[in-house]
Amino acid sequence: MRIVVALGGNALLRRGQALTAENQRANTAIAAQALAAIAPDQELIVTHGNGPQVGLLALQGNAYKPDEAYPLDVLGAETEGMIGYMIEQELGNRLPPETPLATLLTMIEVDAKDPAFASPTKFIGPVYDKPEAERMAAEKGWEIRADGDKWRRVVASPLPRRIFQIRPIKWLVEKQTVVICAGGGGIPTAYNAAGDLEGIEAVIDKDLASELLAREVEADLFISATDAEAVFLDWGTEAQRGIRSATPEALAQHQFAAGSMGPKVAAACQFAQKTGKTAAIGALADLADIVAGKKGTTIRVDAGDMAFHDTTGRGG
Amino acid sequence: MRIVVALGGNALLRRGQALTAENQRANTAIAAQALAAIAPDQELIVTHGNGPQVGLLALQGNAYKPDEAYPLDVLGAETEGMIGYMIEQELGNRLPPETPLATLLTMIEVDAKDPAFASPTKFIGPVYDKPEAERMAAEKGWEIRADGDKWRRVVASPLPRRIFQIRPIKWLVEKQTVVICAGGGGIPTAYNAAGDLEGIEAVIDKDLASELLAREVEADLFISATDAEAVFLDWGTEAQRGIRSATPEALAQHQFAAGSMGPKVAAACQFAQKTGKTAAIGALADLADIVAGKKGTTIRVDAGDMAFHDTTGRGG
Repeated sequence: MRIVVALGGNALLRRGQALTAENQRANTAIAAQALAAIAPDQELIVTHGNGPQVGLLALQGNAYKPDEAYPLDVLGAETEGMIGYMIEQELGNRLPPETPLATLLTMIEVDAKDPAFASPTKFIGPVYDKPEAERMAAEKGWEIRADGDKWRRVVASPLPRRIFQIRPIKWLVEKQTVVICAGGGGIPTAYNAAGDLEGIEAVIDKDLASELLAREVEADLFISATDAEAVFLDWGTEAQRGIRSATPEALAQHQFAAGSMGPKVAAACQFAQKTGKTAAIGALADLADIVAGKKGTTIRVDAGDMAFHDTTGRGG
Repeated sequence: MRIVVALGGNALLRRGQALTAENQRANTAIAAQALAAIAPDQELIVTHGNGPQVGLLALQGNAYKPDEAYPLDVLGAETEGMIGYMIEQELGNRLPPETPLATLLTMIEVDAKDPAFASPTKFIGPVYDKPEAERMAAEKGWEIRADGDKWRRVVASPLPRRIFQIRPIKWLVEKQTVVICAGGGGIPTAYNAAGDLEGIEAVIDKDLASELLAREVEADLFISATDAEAVFLDWGTEAQRGIRSATPEALAQHQFAAGSMGPKVAAACQFAQKTGKTAAIGALADLADIVAGKKGTTIRVDAGDMAFHDTTGRGG
């Protein structure tokens, strides 16, 4: 079976943890343990977030020479190297020695006319006091917004249109290579007026990028691995129930948390609808049971409305 | 023909230039122009240095939180993403649209018992005043040495033994993919006592890493692309002569500059000797003519001692 596993941001850095190499390494080892439990029997492609890491690199560059700070596309490329390296090494240490692994730098095309560019919403990089943020905005052409009592840069989150490295990714998967790619939603790029591809100061939603990847590699199963055991209805109330299986139509009747479960559900439903195959959302630690259909939330067009797990549990 | 081109450090950053994204981008565009002139007719694999870039990332990390500075293996992985991205994008913009390209993160095994670890010689990262350098050395277990009137960390430069991603690299080349890999000499790794692969605080000589790669992908031609037009004898004197062709044995009779032409000649000779195929050293701008055998220095076991170019030129 061909499986795309999208590692959520919390898989690599728990909330409130310092973003040290040691913490990232320890969390990556835990993620690798879960991935190693399924890899030997499957064709596996792994994607991951990069929010905290790209923020760290922005802070580092700003602390050194703010006037020579690197653009977001280049920082994204750096995080694909950093995170991909850790995943590939930790995963390799837990797989049979001859298993081929590869981390591919991934560029994704966005539409320069995407309506998202008209209203940037995605906070990135360090926080500033208002005057400093305004100075940076004037100097660098940034859009800024209040984030609590500080100010931050905001960028657009355009839709992913095309994964440039899709053929190399597929060729490697066909050779049973575990492929790590599309990190951080891929590096956003667009063709300029001269017909050249160039980096764009934006952030592609990583769930949508992973969904596009899963569709284009013709995955049988697309899993969002997070810290929630399943998608829950009535989360945080007495009536909370973990969804065992659902159709995209049944899920569309409910609201899920924007910025966490919401985008995962949207991407999973899109995959199920467009391919007729299976999407799943669940806990990273349960990965093997999610593949076996025993845990997490399974989303299929033929899932028969909605069914629930018997037990309650952690959700989101 | 299958060709490995190793881009010298100067191909991506000229001496004395500020290490801005703009300068790197502009130099990468020039390199891409030269590579694009040969890529359509060849199987092409591109490697590159990362010295200035890894130094920059170390400075950035140090400026932000010196106590949370990332280890050298992770910074190396970041530069493979950063530089690979720029090369892949600039090269892709100059090749027929359907040409597949891929940048692969590359880990290389070194021997933890390599004698190089006993006498670290390779300067890396920022310069410090002596007391600060001594404090850092005590705290982080660094070796330090005087570099002019400042002090710097030094690390070992062990020999490359094995390229972990060699199968994916070959599989992609077989599909006519232009592959960018082994950046900065690859990320140095070694197996620890528990049998796990881990990153090593070292720097692998990028010419030797590129030579090992060229051998393992069974390249027909291994080119070191630099800013010198050829290997010169009696460089800087009235008698200077650019070498057109030579055997490894003939070159072994001469000394070349340590840290610049010396390692390139050593790697080229090793390739020619071990494979019986052709190595070449010359100017990046002359790449197409080097492939055609018209420019640069060609090194082969059957080259017939040594022959010279008629004209003098820039060398090193």
